[in-house]
Amino acid sequence: MRLEEDGPRVVLLDQRRLPDEEVELECRSAAEVAEAIRTLAVRGAPAIGVAAAYGLALAALRGEDLDTAQAALAAARPTAVNLAWALARLRPDPSPERARALHDAEVERCRRMAAHAASLFGPATRALTHCNAGGLATGGYGSAVGAIRAAWERGLVEQVLVDETRPLLQGARLTAWELEAVGIPYAVMVDSAAASMMAHGEVDLVVTGADRIAANGDTANKIGTYGLAVLAAHHDIPFYVVAPTSTVDLRTPTGAGIPIEERDPAEVTSRFPARNPAFDVTPAELVAAIVTEDGVHRAPYGESLARAHVAA
Amino acid sequence: MRLEEDGPRVVLLDQRRLPDEEVELECRSAAEVAEAIRTLAVRGAPAIGVAAAYGLALAALRGEDLDTAQAALAAARPTAVNLAWALARLRPDPSPERARALHDAEVERCRRMAAHAASLFGPATRALTHCNAGGLATGGYGSAVGAIRAAWERGLVEQVLVDETRPLLQGARLTAWELEAVGIPYAVMVDSAAASMMAHGEVDLVVTGADRIAANGDTANKIGTYGLAVLAAHHDIPFYVVAPTSTVDLRTPTGAGIPIEERDPAEVTSRFPARNPAFDVTPAELVAAIVTEDGVHRAPYGESLARAHVAA
Repeated sequence: MRLEEDGPRVVLLDQRRLPDEEVELECRSAAEVAEAIRTLAVRGAPAIGVAAAYGLALAALRGEDLDTAQAALAAARPTAVNLAWALARLRPDPSPERARALHDAEVERCRRMAAHAASLFGPATRALTHCNAGGLATGGYGSAVGAIRAAWERGLVEQVLVDETRPLLQGARLTAWELEAVGIPYAVMVDSAAASMMAHGEVDLVVTGADRIAANGDTANKIGTYGLAVLAAHHDIPFYVVAPTSTVDLRTPTGAGIPIEERDPAEVTSRFPARNPAFDVTPAELVAAIVTEDGVHRAPYGESLARAHVAA
Repeated sequence: MRLEEDGPRVVLLDQRRLPDEEVELECRSAAEVAEAIRTLAVRGAPAIGVAAAYGLALAALRGEDLDTAQAALAAARPTAVNLAWALARLRPDPSPERARALHDAEVERCRRMAAHAASLFGPATRALTHCNAGGLATGGYGSAVGAIRAAWERGLVEQVLVDETRPLLQGARLTAWELEAVGIPYAVMVDSAAASMMAHGEVDLVVTGADRIAANGDTANKIGTYGLAVLAAHHDIPFYVVAPTSTVDLRTPTGAGIPIEERDPAEVTSRFPARNPAFDVTPAELVAAIVTEDGVHRAPYGESLARAHVAA
């Protein structure tokens, strides 16, 4: 993902077409960036924050009205707090340099998170992950997948079970593609196989990213994450959340205040009536640890997250 | 599903092509019936029992070697015990009349189960079901869907949440099609949305069929069922299994002895390494009640199931 100042445009790898095709999408206005976010050409909480920052810088380069541009970008998707966070950060001076610095800082956060999170992996860990919290979702390296990568580099990963992640198959399309590229052994499975894999002792830990973390540690993430956390607790398996402090929203006291996007039912089926909530909320008490770039937070999360956020 | 003695053949509605097309498949030998079972043209534990019975009767009409025919039919799929049960029942005299009587008896069992199970529904029940335990799966009327139909006829059903049931989408393709035909309000959702729906108070009970019930009440069913049972327990929601006594296998003491079919990974994804267990086992302690044609069984299930089985 990058901002080109010449004929100004934001260039993104179109995640909708992966893994079949690696195609770049060029957005030539803030509205086009917002549309790319809305239609999931770029997705993942930190990545859409970075895209929004580039979108605002693009708007400034083009002399667009910045209030309008910011409003369009902020409204593109409701659940991830990174969108509003990145826009607020960049707004005072939406220069290309500051947008790039924000991008670089997010990737640097990922590397630090990953190093902290890798300390939670024992030898020969079989990890389970959901959706895609990889380099694609974060602008580089990854949060949950970053943790797996860092642990793999330390020789601690035996196998990764990848939930395919219906309806849009971010696990089967994107996480598998990323793990394949790095050479980490993995197998894709249907989301509903997780419980059975846990019961058969094939899962040592569950690790996911987050779209928004409330002040008390309640965590919104891709639909299905909450169920995994309940199943992990039932099987005495630790459930870890890895996310940068840009995902922590201290102004939302608990998960009950996190807006949950309900997407087009046609993503599930267009033939019959359907429901399509895109996210769910995992209560803090089911989370064994939240890993941000400044370390491994344990319950109670409130004070610890507040400190981390201010420090960032 | 029926046996035609003239130019002898077993005729089935090809479930692989539903809901797009209603096409009959004609099987002209026991091997072709076994192939139809193996490839899921007919699926659902009671339905494949009925299909196997018709297949054996077809073999007898055609003068096939009955040992070979029975072995091929019995080996078509491993998990549902109904296959072996129906073949053993029919074998002493594999006449068309006895195969039809077995079919009629299975449908009659469904109607009796459904009446018992409907007593578990309160007013305005929001039920969640997984896979297809409907008329298609049972040779007529249905087990779990039969229970929902009977409760609906008593005015007790507000809404049915239907797990789409990856990888083969029996919920989204078959259960939705059946509920649509009867006019019961429903919505399809991705399997991983169940936990979130439970947390939001949108589920009053979970009801599924079964492919095999061990002597102690442990229950094998479509992959994902076990996870639903854990989630239901976590949310204090009753989890019910509705199945005829032909699904009860007293010779398998516990779920650990039930063979779990692992199907072609390409059903999940053909592009990346994948795992594809087709069933899982729900321990008896997570099951609020097992409903067979002779009533509602409560834990401990051992003696009660043994009595029911002998009576059948």
